[in-house]
Amino acid sequence: MFRVHLIIVSDTCSKDPSKDRVIPAVSEIINLRSDEYVLKGTSIIPDEKTFIQSEISSVARDSKIDLIITSGGTGFGVRDVTPEAVAPLLDRQAPGLVQMMIQESLKITPMAALSRPVAGVMGKCIVITLPGSPKGACENLTSIFPILSHALSLACGSSATPHGVSQKLQNVNSSHDVGHHKHNHPHNGACEHSHKGPKFYNRSNDLSRPVTERARQSPYPMISVDEALDVINATVPTPRVEERNIDQTLIGYVIAENIYSTVNVPGYRASIVDGYAVGNYSFPNTYDVSDISHANSLASSTRLESNTIVRVTTGAPVPNGTFAVIPVESTYVESSRVDSNGKEEEARVFIDVDEIVKEGDNIREPGSDVEINDLILSEGTEITAVGGEIGLLSSVGLRTVNVYRKPIIGIMSTGDEVVDPSSCSSLIGGQVWDSNRPSLITACKGNNFEVVDLGIVEDVANRLESSIRQAYSKRGVDIIITTGGVSMGELDLLKPTIERALNGIIHFGRVAMKPGKPTTFGSFGNKLIFGLPGNPASALVTFHLFVLPCLRLWSGRSKNRYKLPTVKVKLGEAFYLDPRPEYQRAKILQNDDGCLIAYSTGRQRSSRVGSMYTANGLLCLPSSTNQSSPILPEGNVIEAIMIGPL
Amino acid sequence: MFRVHLIIVSDTCSKDPSKDRVIPAVSEIINLRSDEYVLKGTSIIPDEKTFIQSEISSVARDSKIDLIITSGGTGFGVRDVTPEAVAPLLDRQAPGLVQMMIQESLKITPMAALSRPVAGVMGKCIVITLPGSPKGACENLTSIFPILSHALSLACGSSATPHGVSQKLQNVNSSHDVGHHKHNHPHNGACEHSHKGPKFYNRSNDLSRPVTERARQSPYPMISVDEALDVINATVPTPRVEERNIDQTLIGYVIAENIYSTVNVPGYRASIVDGYAVGNYSFPNTYDVSDISHANSLASSTRLESNTIVRVTTGAPVPNGTFAVIPVESTYVESSRVDSNGKEEEARVFIDVDEIVKEGDNIREPGSDVEINDLILSEGTEITAVGGEIGLLSSVGLRTVNVYRKPIIGIMSTGDEVVDPSSCSSLIGGQVWDSNRPSLITACKGNNFEVVDLGIVEDVANRLESSIRQAYSKRGVDIIITTGGVSMGELDLLKPTIERALNGIIHFGRVAMKPGKPTTFGSFGNKLIFGLPGNPASALVTFHLFVLPCLRLWSGRSKNRYKLPTVKVKLGEAFYLDPRPEYQRAKILQNDDGCLIAYSTGRQRSSRVGSMYTANGLLCLPSSTNQSSPILPEGNVIEAIMIGPL
Repeated sequence: MFRVHLIIVSDTCSKDPSKDRVIPAVSEIINLRSDEYVLKGTSIIPDEKTFIQSEISSVARDSKIDLIITSGGTGFGVRDVTPEAVAPLLDRQAPGLVQMMIQESLKITPMAALSRPVAGVMGKCIVITLPGSPKGACENLTSIFPILSHALSLACGSSATPHGVSQKLQNVNSSHDVGHHKHNHPHNGACEHSHKGPKFYNRSNDLSRPVTERARQSPYPMISVDEALDVINATVPTPRVEERNIDQTLIGYVIAENIYSTVNVPGYRASIVDGYAVGNYSFPNTYDVSDISHANSLASSTRLESNTIVRVTTGAPVPNGTFAVIPVESTYVESSRVDSNGKEEEARVFIDVDEIVKEGDNIREPGSDVEINDLILSEGTEITAVGGEIGLLSSVGLRTVNVYRKPIIGIMSTGDEVVDPSSCSSLIGGQVWDSNRPSLITACKGNNFEVVDLGIVEDVANRLESSIRQAYSKRGVDIIITTGGVSMGELDLLKPTIERALNGIIHFGRVAMKPGKPTTFGSFGNKLIFGLPGNPASALVTFHLFVLPCLRLWSGRSKNRYKLPTVKVKLGEAFYLDPRPEYQRAKILQNDDGCLIAYSTGRQRSSRVGSMYTANGLLCLPSSTNQSSPILPEGNVIEAIMIGPL
Repeated sequence: MFRVHLIIVSDTCSKDPSKDRVIPAVSEIINLRSDEYVLKGTSIIPDEKTFIQSEISSVARDSKIDLIITSGGTGFGVRDVTPEAVAPLLDRQAPGLVQMMIQESLKITPMAALSRPVAGVMGKCIVITLPGSPKGACENLTSIFPILSHALSLACGSSATPHGVSQKLQNVNSSHDVGHHKHNHPHNGACEHSHKGPKFYNRSNDLSRPVTERARQSPYPMISVDEALDVINATVPTPRVEERNIDQTLIGYVIAENIYSTVNVPGYRASIVDGYAVGNYSFPNTYDVSDISHANSLASSTRLESNTIVRVTTGAPVPNGTFAVIPVESTYVESSRVDSNGKEEEARVFIDVDEIVKEGDNIREPGSDVEINDLILSEGTEITAVGGEIGLLSSVGLRTVNVYRKPIIGIMSTGDEVVDPSSCSSLIGGQVWDSNRPSLITACKGNNFEVVDLGIVEDVANRLESSIRQAYSKRGVDIIITTGGVSMGELDLLKPTIERALNGIIHFGRVAMKPGKPTTFGSFGNKLIFGLPGNPASALVTFHLFVLPCLRLWSGRSKNRYKLPTVKVKLGEAFYLDPRPEYQRAKILQNDDGCLIAYSTGRQRSSRVGSMYTANGLLCLPSSTNQSSPILPEGNVIEAIMIGPL
């Protein structure tokens, strides 16, 4: 079964997908051959070379697709660039296929001579370019079906053996170069083939090319916030386990093992009060004081003599045979004596108790707080600042514990215009003070992560590249958070640097949200990078929405606890909705009837960091699309993400 | 007007105040003389020397009282110790007053000969001891009323001149020593007179006296949690102001000044998008690209040439005369040219816009995020870990800010039985692992306070004293938190050490709560000390209930924001009520209908630190007294204190 992906190349349809007629038509003729072909996916993109190249690369790389079909952009119009975009992607061109398509079309219309299709092999995919009309596309495709499955079998090579293709036939392939366009050819653009197989086109701008060739729209698909979180979830490396001392530096770590107590707490029968260890005597009555048991004494090995009592202090072991402990408040000294050291001591004490004394009164039995072999903390427990977990671990005498390692975070601001307040006293021209680095370092440290300050990096590609390399290799950073340089400008270097200079993968480059649309997430093996928007409010919102969950996951929080906690809140005022889902900075508090209520922190422009001041929550406002009104009235209940304490 | 305090000394009445008949009787005869006397207060204490001495001292020291009257304990019974307790307190005895009282009583009954009253002057107070029967007490008091006001006027000295007392009469006093028992007398007990005036009795045990003389009940009055917080509030010194750098180390600091911006943000007209600065042109249309403005350029001083456009990047200044900025997504390059450096550049760009372009579209005006002289952060603002405040301060180019200084905390465990896990591998006898120091250090650090680890101090009085002295003087500690040694045992050294060895003041020594009853709070001038109970759960509960608010207040939080936030929660299960108000460790979460719901963390014994594990709140359960049922059913709504995030 060959898996097909269909890409519609059309400015018109990419703005309004309802105008497309090719997908249904092509689907139909593929479905007619459902024994051999299955249509696995479709995309609609504008007539932009970068889009065409990145979409084809992405499909070829990310999916298990055998045949990529494009439709549109093969004519003589000024915006028709599909052949120019596809040709450099091909490892091996297939002029025979092209000729076959044109020949069949010419039988129907002489206009076919104005079509400029290309076809060929890209990795293990075959790529063919069909015209943009439904009729032309179907005719062209139909004309080559007779030989297409054979070609696909050959292109797949030995790693995937479609039905009916003999090993012999495949072996032919290895000595059978279809194309003449193979390696050492002069490339148009930045096709980066290697001899091991195709290196796919990157979506990001090629910084070596003129500015006129850069993408006019972000080539990264717009994904939802939930999809972005899923991608992060799937990308974060498995946390390592390390042994650490049990002390205050453990705050925020997650326990990586089930911890069982090896001791009883208390380890002995201990008195709960200051008072007198007594037998099963009658009260009220006066008794001789035979001994004293302080905390730390070995009195647990002594016996309570018949009809005497022993003074005990809080927490001290009681003598063997102790029935209960009577608090000192219920006793009077009746007589005293001078002991061998000349100290005056109690001789006889009156126990002034009317109620029935029960066995074990005011005694903590061994193991009654923690029993030996009790599971005291389970894997996945977070060490909080409240102190309970550290107290519990210490109370059973543990010195170290296995926890999940926390990633080390490098924080960098980018941009020629960004100035550190400590480096100069006033701004000129288009300069701005760097607020993102200090605010993100604060947010990381405040969430108990270790931070390396990577400073401000200018908008020079090789500076950015070397800063990133050094952070990972020399400064021990696991994850870099940059701000700025993720928009559409020619100085927005982050994406090209990740993809082209550093050979990393960009997992997403646009998210359907306000603020924070250009949020970018990439990886290099086990190292991660977030490119947050340069606008300060956007940077802090996306930090809490994406980076913090990523850090929490990487430091061992479970898949259902790595996101920040959400609560349902009542709106304290009306909110206008944006077409994008919006994360409004809000002050959340409890109102008189016990419900949580949310108020906006004021103007929400993404440049206004003041909108984060006093915010303890992010209101998850839905997109205005599909809502009956663009205003969400006061009193409505929606979700909010808690980013600070109530 | 003379202010009177009446102290009933009676084992019976101190257990059941309803049995007292003296207070109403004495009140009545005082009210008959309401032109001269007012009864300001009453107390009921048991027949314990320590109680009598500390209560009289406390009344004489804390209140503006002129006359202290005791009733009871003056007979020949074994528990009658009032004269023995009062006599050493008196600076000057008044045998004449005593003789007058006995003489009058003898006229009524020969049994008066068995009364053993004392009377005299303590500081500026007169103290008299009446018998315990209402009749005897009233007769005795009435017998001395004729000369009492004159005696009181004399005792007051010149610093307070009651009505009708001439200066001449007062001057007599200074050369008129009523008593013969004056200084250099051999003291019974630890009366610590100085020549400047009376030094009052301390409530705590005198460690130099035999154990048989220690108090059998805590001499410290039981106060409510709210009263304790009020005392803390009244005692915490005014926070100092210090200048600090603006960075992540500011988390948890409170701003000590109103901060106004000295700059506009942005400082120039800035583009919100990557695109083209345009004039008030017609669209769609094609225009010449005359220039480029990157962020950091000085283009704000250039002008937009008529009918040309300027490429601008996000955040860059737009040229003078710019009407709006068109996003790059709405444009196409129509032709390019090679610039003087041989670089291909855009020559003409098609602006593909159908909608009306409004003036200022995609432009941030100067000062539109923060205007010059805007109040950006007000005094009292806390710097949070969310990052908004640091971002805002940085965005206006500030380098330092005035904040309230945070106190430095010293943390100490006390007790011979307490063992540090790092110092040995297993316990013997009545030893326990130290869990309080690590858990409290964690809680302090987790709340962003600086901590000095004062280690474990043995139960040896001069060790404790020197550790406390060194912490304050050599280690720069402002507030010490100790655990253990606050119960009734002879090794509970904290209170005697504070009061007697270090001359400090104990502001409270008992709180009506569960757990945490023996919580102790003291001060030495500008240094504070908390003595928390040694039981680990008690220590953490009282830390959050008392110490953390104290620390928050001392670091500048306002009087209405220093306590931890409280929320109303629904009980997820039924709770048994204790006679004491209880602070149950609870897990608080939001249920499906958006309300906060609370579940107990399990067994709540104060030794069980496990009850703090997973706890994010303290449920404020009311005392069972005055409740119709000792069980608070599931679904009831009560207050809870948040100690961790939801």
